[in-house]
Amino acid sequence: LRSSPLDSYKRLRLTFGRDIKSAANRGLLGENFRASLDFLSVLTREPLISAVPGKDYFAFSDGKKFSRAVNADLFGDNIAEWIAFEKSIKSRKLLKAFGPDRLTRLIYSVAISFCCYIDLTSSGDQKTPGTFFEYLIAHMFAWRLNVNPTTRIQVLNLDMKTFLTTDFIFDLGNERPKFHLPVKTSTRERVIQVWAHQRVLDGVFGTGRFLGTPVILTETKTDKTRKIVTEICLPAQWRIYQMHIAQLKRIYYLDMPVTYEKLNRVFPPLHVKPFGEFFFEADALSV
Amino acid sequence: LRSSPLDSYKRLRLTFGRDIKSAANRGLLGENFRASLDFLSVLTREPLISAVPGKDYFAFSDGKKFSRAVNADLFGDNIAEWIAFEKSIKSRKLLKAFGPDRLTRLIYSVAISFCCYIDLTSSGDQKTPGTFFEYLIAHMFAWRLNVNPTTRIQVLNLDMKTFLTTDFIFDLGNERPKFHLPVKTSTRERVIQVWAHQRVLDGVFGTGRFLGTPVILTETKTDKTRKIVTEICLPAQWRIYQMHIAQLKRIYYLDMPVTYEKLNRVFPPLHVKPFGEFFFEADALSV
Repeated sequence: LRSSPLDSYKRLRLTFGRDIKSAANRGLLGENFRASLDFLSVLTREPLISAVPGKDYFAFSDGKKFSRAVNADLFGDNIAEWIAFEKSIKSRKLLKAFGPDRLTRLIYSVAISFCCYIDLTSSGDQKTPGTFFEYLIAHMFAWRLNVNPTTRIQVLNLDMKTFLTTDFIFDLGNERPKFHLPVKTSTRERVIQVWAHQRVLDGVFGTGRFLGTPVILTETKTDKTRKIVTEICLPAQWRIYQMHIAQLKRIYYLDMPVTYEKLNRVFPPLHVKPFGEFFFEADALSV
Repeated sequence: LRSSPLDSYKRLRLTFGRDIKSAANRGLLGENFRASLDFLSVLTREPLISAVPGKDYFAFSDGKKFSRAVNADLFGDNIAEWIAFEKSIKSRKLLKAFGPDRLTRLIYSVAISFCCYIDLTSSGDQKTPGTFFEYLIAHMFAWRLNVNPTTRIQVLNLDMKTFLTTDFIFDLGNERPKFHLPVKTSTRERVIQVWAHQRVLDGVFGTGRFLGTPVILTETKTDKTRKIVTEICLPAQWRIYQMHIAQLKRIYYLDMPVTYEKLNRVFPPLHVKPFGEFFFEADALSV
């Protein structure tokens, strides 16, 4: 009897918050990946026309419905890769051998598998994939930093005493940085919110106290009639936000847009990287 | 033969940008109001349970579908009111006699009528009501200021030369203010974008050069099963945004949330007003 990806998703909804970095959560994420791959294994892969240089995309289809675009080079449908990852986390040396690229591909595959499952079994549900992606990234971040996040912090400012609802905040302790982690399946023009939240944290608590490190799945958009995949990128606006709203420390992608890669190489640089890199530079960011 | 509200909407889409403040645009908005009222006149008004103190709401229904919530006290289904407004704009004295409250109610009625028409004739189309509301508010603003808006401005900053896509910008000329007008049918947690855009304008061009004056239709949310209307308000967050991101000059509502009214009376105040007030304080804001 095959299990549905919704089984592990529902259990995550119930228990995720208890101990976000826990092996129990990682187990449920792995179960979800296995069940999603099972579901997708019997579907056809319809090629899409990629307008993105150097990237190929396809969509899963049951003959009637189509999933969102899947990056062919990043997607791996082998559960053995998850098992290999589970083994690699036993030591720093093993994780280093696993490496950032395999990690990016694996996390991309886990995320996009469940997204495609929802695309094909529901009508227009954007919330469930978004919530699952939050679970996945928040767990990975918490596991790496070995601290659980909060999602609201108290503001004490003269006569004001209020709670600020935030994205995930990881507090590494006194005189150490706090990470500010927004998690989005895609951003487009809504990305300005990420800089605005960073600005609020800088304003309330002081610049440099929170490291803004958003994690985004992809910026692809598929024209459903013509089957063309494009990436919606706003590099000039990003540079203006980084200069005039707040400074983000890193912007991590699972499916890294070609256009944003170039922002690493202009001055002042904006550091946009594949998410797998985080696991190897996290300590350097925290000093 | 009755005309459809879509006739005038489609003509607005084609010709709106030619001269945003024009009498021709106002004529199309009036035609739209007439056609929407015609459509709504044969529908029933289903009472909703209002969780908002002092406000009553209903929804239009054709027996199957339900429109969004309509504020019973603000909604007027009489085209004569539009005709009276058209007459009143012939002089300052007549407009003053018409007054801010009638103006707020009239503009609310024009906006909500077309929104309800779309709610009942399409499935989940949020874009068309949003675009129409932008036409309506941008026209009224442009007419009052007697200048047409732009939606992008050039940034020249050392080695950067880029265009910034913005909400509506009204430039009153040298050594006079520019108005920054975001237009939203509702904002909820996305409102932080408005402050972030203001911050960018302040940063690029200098603080105080642009007066941020967003116009929002309503913040109501209807629980469709239980038929309960609530207002989603975040007054504590708004105060933090106003202190730490940027300063908005005014926030105008057509259906003003009860909770935000109080922000006018705390220190530092945040000026949240019914949209009708704009037409009588615009000159005072511009000096």
